[in-house]
Amino acid sequence: MRRFATERAKKLISSYHHHHQRSLFSSSQSPRFFTSVASDPSSVMSSSSPPVTLDTINPKVLKCEYAVRGEIVSQAQHLQQELQAKRGSHPFDEILYCNIGNPQSLGQQPITFFREVLALCDHPSILDRSETQGLFSADSIQRAWQILDLIPGRATGAYSHSQGIKGLRDHIAAGIEARDGFPANPNDIFLTDGASPAVHMMMQLLIRSETDGILCPIPQYPLCSASIALHGGALVPYYLDEAKGWGLEVSELQKQLKEARSNGITVRALVVINPGNPTGQVLAEDNQREIVEFCKNENLVLLADEVYQENIYVDEKKFHSFKKVSRFMGYGEDDIALVSFQSVSKGYYGECGKRGGYMEVTGFSADVREQIYKVASVNLCSNISGQILASLVMNPPKVGDESYESYIAEKDGILSSLARRAKTLEDAFNSLEGITCNKAEGAMYLFPCIHLPQKAIEAAKALKKAPDALYASRLLEATGIVVVPGSGFGQVPGTWHFRCTILPQEDKIPAVVSRLTAFHEAFMAEYRD
Amino acid sequence: MRRFATERAKKLISSYHHHHQRSLFSSSQSPRFFTSVASDPSSVMSSSSPPVTLDTINPKVLKCEYAVRGEIVSQAQHLQQELQAKRGSHPFDEILYCNIGNPQSLGQQPITFFREVLALCDHPSILDRSETQGLFSADSIQRAWQILDLIPGRATGAYSHSQGIKGLRDHIAAGIEARDGFPANPNDIFLTDGASPAVHMMMQLLIRSETDGILCPIPQYPLCSASIALHGGALVPYYLDEAKGWGLEVSELQKQLKEARSNGITVRALVVINPGNPTGQVLAEDNQREIVEFCKNENLVLLADEVYQENIYVDEKKFHSFKKVSRFMGYGEDDIALVSFQSVSKGYYGECGKRGGYMEVTGFSADVREQIYKVASVNLCSNISGQILASLVMNPPKVGDESYESYIAEKDGILSSLARRAKTLEDAFNSLEGITCNKAEGAMYLFPCIHLPQKAIEAAKALKKAPDALYASRLLEATGIVVVPGSGFGQVPGTWHFRCTILPQEDKIPAVVSRLTAFHEAFMAEYRD
Repeated sequence: MRRFATERAKKLISSYHHHHQRSLFSSSQSPRFFTSVASDPSSVMSSSSPPVTLDTINPKVLKCEYAVRGEIVSQAQHLQQELQAKRGSHPFDEILYCNIGNPQSLGQQPITFFREVLALCDHPSILDRSETQGLFSADSIQRAWQILDLIPGRATGAYSHSQGIKGLRDHIAAGIEARDGFPANPNDIFLTDGASPAVHMMMQLLIRSETDGILCPIPQYPLCSASIALHGGALVPYYLDEAKGWGLEVSELQKQLKEARSNGITVRALVVINPGNPTGQVLAEDNQREIVEFCKNENLVLLADEVYQENIYVDEKKFHSFKKVSRFMGYGEDDIALVSFQSVSKGYYGECGKRGGYMEVTGFSADVREQIYKVASVNLCSNISGQILASLVMNPPKVGDESYESYIAEKDGILSSLARRAKTLEDAFNSLEGITCNKAEGAMYLFPCIHLPQKAIEAAKALKKAPDALYASRLLEATGIVVVPGSGFGQVPGTWHFRCTILPQEDKIPAVVSRLTAFHEAFMAEYRD
Repeated sequence: MRRFATERAKKLISSYHHHHQRSLFSSSQSPRFFTSVASDPSSVMSSSSPPVTLDTINPKVLKCEYAVRGEIVSQAQHLQQELQAKRGSHPFDEILYCNIGNPQSLGQQPITFFREVLALCDHPSILDRSETQGLFSADSIQRAWQILDLIPGRATGAYSHSQGIKGLRDHIAAGIEARDGFPANPNDIFLTDGASPAVHMMMQLLIRSETDGILCPIPQYPLCSASIALHGGALVPYYLDEAKGWGLEVSELQKQLKEARSNGITVRALVVINPGNPTGQVLAEDNQREIVEFCKNENLVLLADEVYQENIYVDEKKFHSFKKVSRFMGYGEDDIALVSFQSVSKGYYGECGKRGGYMEVTGFSADVREQIYKVASVNLCSNISGQILASLVMNPPKVGDESYESYIAEKDGILSSLARRAKTLEDAFNSLEGITCNKAEGAMYLFPCIHLPQKAIEAAKALKKAPDALYASRLLEATGIVVVPGSGFGQVPGTWHFRCTILPQEDKIPAVVSRLTAFHEAFMAEYRD
C-alpha cells in the first residue's frame, strides 16, 4: 500500500492523496471518472464546447466515490428492468438488495406507534374527531397533542429553529440522559435530514485544505471518504484488525497519526464507527476509554458514528456512547471535543425514508458552535417529520402506555430476528470454501473475507475490475443478490471482501443461503488454481 | 463600490473577493466572524489549545453569511423570551417574524388535501378501515393508494432512488409538461430536501476555485452568496434597476461579465430569481428571451430559482419557466444548460417544514449528469414525505375530484389575500417620509428603500452597525416586527433597504401598518437632519 512516506513537499500532497485513496478504494468502481479526465482531448475550454464538461467540473466531485450506490447497483437496476420486461429471463425472480441498510425496502414493517404519531402530526385536524379514537391508539393521540404543543403555533408546516424544534430537542436530550446516566443539553443537539448532512457539516468545518487529515477506519462506511473528498481533505487510514474480530488498536492509531504528521498532514479528527460499518464489531468499554484518551492527548475531535446503537445482537456486548465513556472518565466539556451522530434510518425502526437524525456536539467553544449554527441556518432546518421521529425513537412508549406491549413486541421481534439472520448468514459464509467471516455483534452487515484463487484475480485484471467487484457482479448475475465489493470500503491491500446486509426477511434467508452456496461453489470450481 | 478592477494577479483575487463581498454585504451582520480572526492572539496552534477554534476552522465557513437568520433573529428570540418571562415588558405582545418566507409560522393553514394524502402515506394500515372513509376525502384515499403503488414494496420508510421515487418524478414531469406545454423527462428531475441542497449541489459541481465566478443579482437571496462562499467561488454581482421596478438589464449582465473576465474570473453560471427575492418583480417574457440568449452566447449555465412560480399577484404578469421560454425559442438540450429549482416551501401551500423540492437539470452531458447523480447518492435520498408533497403540488386535485372545490377555495383564498396584503403594505410604505417601495408583482416580499437622514447614518457608524441594521433593530425593539436589513441581500452602496414579508395574517395587517408608521415617524423625528 502506498503511503505519504517519501515526498514531503506540500505541493505534492494533493496528488499523493489522490494516489493514496486510489489504492485504498479500487478504481474498478468508477474507472471512467479518472480516465476521461486524462484522455479527453477537449480539455482546453473553448467558446463552442458546452459550459460544463467532466474537464471543467470541480475535481473534488470527480474524486468522490460512493460504492454503496455505485456500479453494482446500476447493474442490479438493469437486471430488474429485464426481469420486469420478461419474467424468467434470469435464474431468479427478484433482485435482493443486500447492498444497503434499508430494512423496509426488504419488507420490514414500520413500528406502528411511530407511524400513528407521524400521521396525526401531519393532519392534526382529525385529532378531535371521534373516528380517530377508533383508528389510533390513545397514547399516540396524546403524544401527537404533546408534540404539537411543543411547536410554535402548532405549525408542522413551518420552518423550525435551525437546530430543530426546541421542545423536541428537550425530548432527545432526556432520552440521551436516560441512556447514558449523564446530562445532555438540548442546545448541543442539531437535528438533521439523516446523519449524512451532519457528517458533511463537520467535515466542512474541519477541513481547510488537502493537508488537513481525518483518521478513518479501514474498512469504513464510504460516506466518510466521500465527504472528505468533497471537502478536499486527506483521509488518514487506520486499519481494523480482522484477525481480532475487527479490533481497533490504539497502537495502530498512533502509528498512522505519526506517519501522517511526518508527511505534513494536520490531523484534525478521528472517526470511529461503533457498532462498526461494514464490520459489525461492538467496541469494548476499555477500548473506548483508550480511544478517548488518545483523542484528548493528541488534541483530536472525536467523530463518533453511533447510528447502530440499538442494533446489538450478542449478550456479551453492550452499546456505550462515547459521551458516556468520556464523562465516566471524568472528562467534561473542556477536555474533549466530541460529536455523536444518530439517525432514525437504523436501529430496529429502520425509517430510512424519513431522513431524521441528529448530532450532539460537545466540547466546542461558543464561537465555533455559532459557526456550526450559521452553516445549519443556511439550509433553514431539517424536515419536521424526521425531527418528530428522532424525538420518538429516543422516547418510545413506556410501561403503562396503551401501545407499550405491542411496541415492545414489534421491537423485540425485529431485533431477535435480525440476530438470528446474522448468525445464520455468518455460519453459512464460514461453511464456504475460502471464506472467513467475523461475527456481526451489531449493526446490519457481515463483511466476509474471500480468499480468491489467483485465476479469479487474473480474470478480474483482464476485465479491469477489482477481484471483489468481479465476484459481486457474478454473484448478482447468478442469484439476484446485490452485495458491495470490499474495495468500496477499503481493505488491507491484497485481501478481498464484500459487504452483505442481514436484512432479507427471515423466510427468505434459506433461499439466500442456498443460492449463495451454489454460486460460490460454481465460482470456485471455475477459477480454482 | 469596490470591484475586481485594478489588480490582476490571481493570488490577489481571493482577498479581493473577500473585500468585494464585504462591501456588498455589510459586516454589521456578523462583525465578530472577521475581527476575531484578525485579533485573536491564540492564532498559532499549540497542543494545549482546543482542537477547534475560530482560527483553525475552514475559512470558507467563516466567510459565509446568512442574514435571514442572522443577528436580527437572535435579537428577536431574546425579546420573545423576555415577553414570555414577563408579559408587558415591551410595548407589544408578540414578535411578528417578517424576516423569512414561512407562512405557516404566521398562521397560514395547510392545504387540506395535501395533508390528508401525507397522513395516509405515513400510516397506510388505516387505508382499509371503514373509519377512514369518514375522516378523509375519497380522492385523498385514492391518491394515497396511487402513490403507494408507485413505491417499490409500498415502503414509505425505505430509502428511494437517489433522484427520488421514479413514479413521483413521472408525476412531476407530467406537471411541468402541463405547465409549460413542452415535454419534461423524469430522469432530469432530482428531488431534494427543499431547494437549498439543490443549489449547493450545483455550486459544488461548478466551483473549482476562487477564480470561478457565478453571476448573481444584487439584491439576492443570501443562499446564493452563502453557497458560493462555502464552495470558495467568486460572486460576480449584477445590479437590478430599482428605478425600473427591479428590472434586469442584459447590458448590465454584459458589463459585469466583461469586467469579471478581465480580472481573471471564469464565469460559470448566471443565477436568476424569478419571481424575484427579495425584490418581488416578475420578469417579462421578452426579457427572459434576452437572458436565455445571453447565457447561450456566453456559454453560461442558467440557474433559475423559480420557487415562487405560483406566487403572482398582478394581472399583467404571468410566470413563464426558463425552460418553456428556451424551448419556445427553439433551443433544446444541446443549446442551453439550464437548471430550474422548485420548492414545496413557497407557492400558496407554503409547506416549509416538509423540506420538499426538486431541480430539473437539462442540457448537461450524460457523464456530467452521472456526477450529479453520484453526489446525490452520497446522501442517499431526500425525505419521502417531501417527495410525495412535491408530486402533489405539481398535480393538485382536478375538476371532478371530490376535493377539487374545497382545494380551489383554499388556494384562491390564500393567493388573493396575499395580493391584498402586498398592496396594503406597499401603499403603507410609500406613504411614509423617505420611503419608496416597488410593487410586489410576485414572491412574498417587499424591499422598500429607506432614505435615511445623515444623522441616523452617523449614529449607526458610531455603533459599528450598518444604517439599515440600526433601523431594523430599532423597529424590532419598538414594534416586535422582524425585518431583514438590505445589507444582508446586497444593495447599491449608499442605498438602504429592508426586506419585509407580506405574510402576517390579514387581520393583523392594520396593526402592522400602524405600528410601522408610528415607529417610522418617531425614528425620522429623532434623526431628521
